[in-house]
Amino acid sequence: MLLPNSVQKLIKLWSKLPGIGEKSSRRMVFYVLRQDTAWIKDFASALTKLADEVHHCSECGNITDTDPCSLCRDTMRNRKKICVVETDEDCVAIEQAGIFNGLYHVLGGQLSPLDDKEIPQESLDRLRRRITELRVEELILATSPRIEGDLTAYAIQDTLKDLPVKISRLSYGLPVGGSIGFADRVTLHMALESRQEML
Amino acid sequence: MLLPNSVQKLIKLWSKLPGIGEKSSRRMVFYVLRQDTAWIKDFASALTKLADEVHHCSECGNITDTDPCSLCRDTMRNRKKICVVETDEDCVAIEQAGIFNGLYHVLGGQLSPLDDKEIPQESLDRLRRRITELRVEELILATSPRIEGDLTAYAIQDTLKDLPVKISRLSYGLPVGGSIGFADRVTLHMALESRQEML
Repeated sequence: MLLPNSVQKLIKLWSKLPGIGEKSSRRMVFYVLRQDTAWIKDFASALTKLADEVHHCSECGNITDTDPCSLCRDTMRNRKKICVVETDEDCVAIEQAGIFNGLYHVLGGQLSPLDDKEIPQESLDRLRRRITELRVEELILATSPRIEGDLTAYAIQDTLKDLPVKISRLSYGLPVGGSIGFADRVTLHMALESRQEML
Repeated sequence: MLLPNSVQKLIKLWSKLPGIGEKSSRRMVFYVLRQDTAWIKDFASALTKLADEVHHCSECGNITDTDPCSLCRDTMRNRKKICVVETDEDCVAIEQAGIFNGLYHVLGGQLSPLDDKEIPQESLDRLRRRITELRVEELILATSPRIEGDLTAYAIQDTLKDLPVKISRLSYGLPVGGSIGFADRVTLHMALESRQEML
């Protein structure tokens, strides 16, 4: 049976998404097919707008449609604390838990020698500049609760050891092997409360 | 934290899809954000094309971008057997299992008195016309293995009892409470092989 080209193509594109196999992908496309044309076009235009309007904040590296982003511009936030995360998704998870009122810094990567990955040097340089310019007092490392996250945290500590800034890290209240993006609010809160200073 | 509008909107749209909650939706949108602009626009245009090009075959009711669809036009298929399914998704599942070489008829609904749902009358009329015009010898009912599917099958049998056509139904090799769209190939094959004539 020949499915229409546009259907085949969308099933293929959709199955690339995280956690989606071929059957789930097909199910979603058929769900879309049952919606009215306006809904589908709305979805398509939301995607197009995403591509056109969303970029990374030149300060913290978070996703935004303004520059600097709303977090960096917010004068009510504590500019003496920066929470360092690996991805913008992690930043959203912490922010939605409503447990932190400082600024963020999105690394955009992690140190993983086995996968030949490094923390982007540009991001580290920017972090150093921000710490100096804002006279940041505490850097809270919220890297993944995994080996790569540990390595990333130690690498950041080592890189910034000449700066007069306290460096702490989220405690292992986070489920080991998990990911920050999927942690629940209580776990995130525990981890923030019991953060440990890196000596 | 204010996520960009386009991100918020897409997360909301995406979470409407079957099996997707808010966190999975967010995860997908962030996955999309990590792709390059071309990939995202490709996705958006695949959706738009879906809305513009895909419609239902005027014969079998299946999704298609031609009319009649490729299945109805295929002269190599057995036009004496019609497999009746509730949705186009069910049709794709059977077709992809590669176990049936006849034609299809997509009902576009099921009989479910509790939900106040009926089989679309237009679809039943069209089925009657097709059986007569094509001199169909066997109608294989592949309705859901649930109460509603049973009711739908009996309603079709009752509606068409004046026609000289053998009516059979997929056997309960199908897992009860499941759905045809997610059945595996072997189960579908068992169910087709052991189909029972409705007397």
